[in-house]
Amino acid sequence: MTGHHPVQLPTGFRASGVTAGLKASGTPDLALVVNDGPDHHAAAVFTTNRVEAAPVTWSRQVLADGRVDAVVLNSGGANACTGAQGFLDTHRTAEHVADVLGVSAGDVVVCSTGLIGELLPMDKITSGVDAAAAALSPEGHEAAAVAIKTTDTVHKVALHAGPGWSVAGMAKGAGMLAPALATMLVVLTTDAVVQPGDLDAALRAATSVSFDRIDSDACMSTNDTVVVLASGASGVAVRGEGLATALTAVCSDLARQLIADAEGAAHDIAIEVVGAASVDDALEVARAVARNNLFKCAIFGNDPNWGRVLAAVGTTRAAFEPTTLDVTMNGVRVCRSGGVGEDRALVDLTGREVHVVVDLHAGTEAATIWTNDLTHDYVHENSAYST
Amino acid sequence: MTGHHPVQLPTGFRASGVTAGLKASGTPDLALVVNDGPDHHAAAVFTTNRVEAAPVTWSRQVLADGRVDAVVLNSGGANACTGAQGFLDTHRTAEHVADVLGVSAGDVVVCSTGLIGELLPMDKITSGVDAAAAALSPEGHEAAAVAIKTTDTVHKVALHAGPGWSVAGMAKGAGMLAPALATMLVVLTTDAVVQPGDLDAALRAATSVSFDRIDSDACMSTNDTVVVLASGASGVAVRGEGLATALTAVCSDLARQLIADAEGAAHDIAIEVVGAASVDDALEVARAVARNNLFKCAIFGNDPNWGRVLAAVGTTRAAFEPTTLDVTMNGVRVCRSGGVGEDRALVDLTGREVHVVVDLHAGTEAATIWTNDLTHDYVHENSAYST
Repeated sequence: MTGHHPVQLPTGFRASGVTAGLKASGTPDLALVVNDGPDHHAAAVFTTNRVEAAPVTWSRQVLADGRVDAVVLNSGGANACTGAQGFLDTHRTAEHVADVLGVSAGDVVVCSTGLIGELLPMDKITSGVDAAAAALSPEGHEAAAVAIKTTDTVHKVALHAGPGWSVAGMAKGAGMLAPALATMLVVLTTDAVVQPGDLDAALRAATSVSFDRIDSDACMSTNDTVVVLASGASGVAVRGEGLATALTAVCSDLARQLIADAEGAAHDIAIEVVGAASVDDALEVARAVARNNLFKCAIFGNDPNWGRVLAAVGTTRAAFEPTTLDVTMNGVRVCRSGGVGEDRALVDLTGREVHVVVDLHAGTEAATIWTNDLTHDYVHENSAYST
Repeated sequence: MTGHHPVQLPTGFRASGVTAGLKASGTPDLALVVNDGPDHHAAAVFTTNRVEAAPVTWSRQVLADGRVDAVVLNSGGANACTGAQGFLDTHRTAEHVADVLGVSAGDVVVCSTGLIGELLPMDKITSGVDAAAAALSPEGHEAAAVAIKTTDTVHKVALHAGPGWSVAGMAKGAGMLAPALATMLVVLTTDAVVQPGDLDAALRAATSVSFDRIDSDACMSTNDTVVVLASGASGVAVRGEGLATALTAVCSDLARQLIADAEGAAHDIAIEVVGAASVDDALEVARAVARNNLFKCAIFGNDPNWGRVLAAVGTTRAAFEPTTLDVTMNGVRVCRSGGVGEDRALVDLTGREVHVVVDLHAGTEAATIWTNDLTHDYVHENSAYST
């Protein structure tokens, strides 16, 4: 975790975070990240939710040519389910950023997060963009990361430093963390000299084993966006595997920070499935356990209820025999061969970290999904969010 | 709802409920239902969970020839994930019932419910069976329904009376109510004269539109069983549609009672999807909403958060256009054409009943899933269940 140390932008970037007045709390709510080049390569992945917010529809178009000059992000409103007016507002936001920065609106990514179904106050957006542009700085990474928080209790940043180049990242997200894509807002920046095709491939490789493998509450957002910008300002050419490794390191770091800050969570839970016939089988089983409300409540209660693990495994189509399943919880094999194993009283769940290993005894593949417990605080936060 | 009125068994049946000492609470925990004939026709549906409890494995075999003389049910232990010993215990339970009643063990259905992963105390089971056999009575329906309760706050019974014949039903279940089959224990009894083939078809028709359409927490049990017994004692022949209608009425009544008593629930929620291209589409959409924890928390908070409904709908593969979706909550069309509709402040969610209508505008089919909200009490009950 690097979240508590300031993480600087790579060379070629400036950023800022300001208070536009979108949030009732009066905390920062508008961020700007600008790529000053010389390269302006970019790639992105978006939510797979068919009900997508206006900024997602817009930004998909922006990414079509692989060039991005700036990313503007706001908290305090998702601009989702806002119809034609919502899309016009996103377009107008991009136009205003473009005017202020002297770039093309078609090269400005827009990200929004907050409550669904409300129009953004555009006067505050435009004055906020003006203030953010005035505040742009090579030291602005942390301020930008702070301004995109919603129910996040901490801002999230991460860094991977290579020889003469680096990748930095900022992320927000504390709920609706489920996969089938990154489910949060993430901006990654690198000063490496990269080929656009390499950038896209490396980003997809990185997100598939990081953000796609966290599953806090099985809920998929309408606004999720992960965008990576490459300035080439370091002059160091990086490609293929090296780029993917660096992006994966930063994405994995951010993903763990997101799970650690998930709404109301009291335990961080790693569901590791081993002995699977395929990675897909391992992921299906791990996700079925991670999404089981009864299991998640049991962990909240420090209860090593392995029966609920087996009941969840039994709902999948993965290759396994019920009579050969093993389940280990924090080092204690509480279920052996589908039946009672070591004494469940030996399992210590009082710490924050929980490690569940499910051995399918059906092959040699493995995968891990990271999730949280289901707590009173989760219910409280999510029953009071919009009121 | 007929749950608060005594429901008598149809002619040809006796039942009882006794305290065998399986539950620490000292409340009744063992029930017996006996079909004295002249017919002994039966049909059943079981959990589709691949990790199935020993009594489910046993009872599937019993049902193979369509004859059942008795059903023995216990709360206080699920006998699931208990290995070879667990199956031997189920077999021994059936043998003991058979000995006491003078029937064949192969005609005795066994149902168990309670915690997974613990062996049953067989001495208490056998002495409990003796006591239950001694207590058998044509007036024993209510006592049996009481003895199968686990976290249920009330026992559930229902009745459909035809001319000269009837169908009665008893059910238990307050959690792990999710479909892909009946997810609870249910015993249905009728004195109608029926053909075995008609009985099986009518049962499947009835459960597919009742128990399969309640989804409390998306969790599927290892023990779920719905069994119907026909004694023919009324001498009234009933077949086909009439039988299906009667079974559906009783199953729907019991299903609503189960949802109304779901663990910790504060709202009963009907998710009605209309304008669907197919019933399957309607069910997929309704279930996606019913399983969305964020939506369920919002309802707990009396918050008409229609954005969470749309975000859930967007995760499905059903035919619809995001820009034509309408959502109505307790009569107020809060979302129109995928955007903001009537004032959400007009929605009154302070009562227990919540009716959400999602119009896909993609066809003429419709379906409803019944679910609950996600509450502090759900988290509390399910984090403390085994401790």
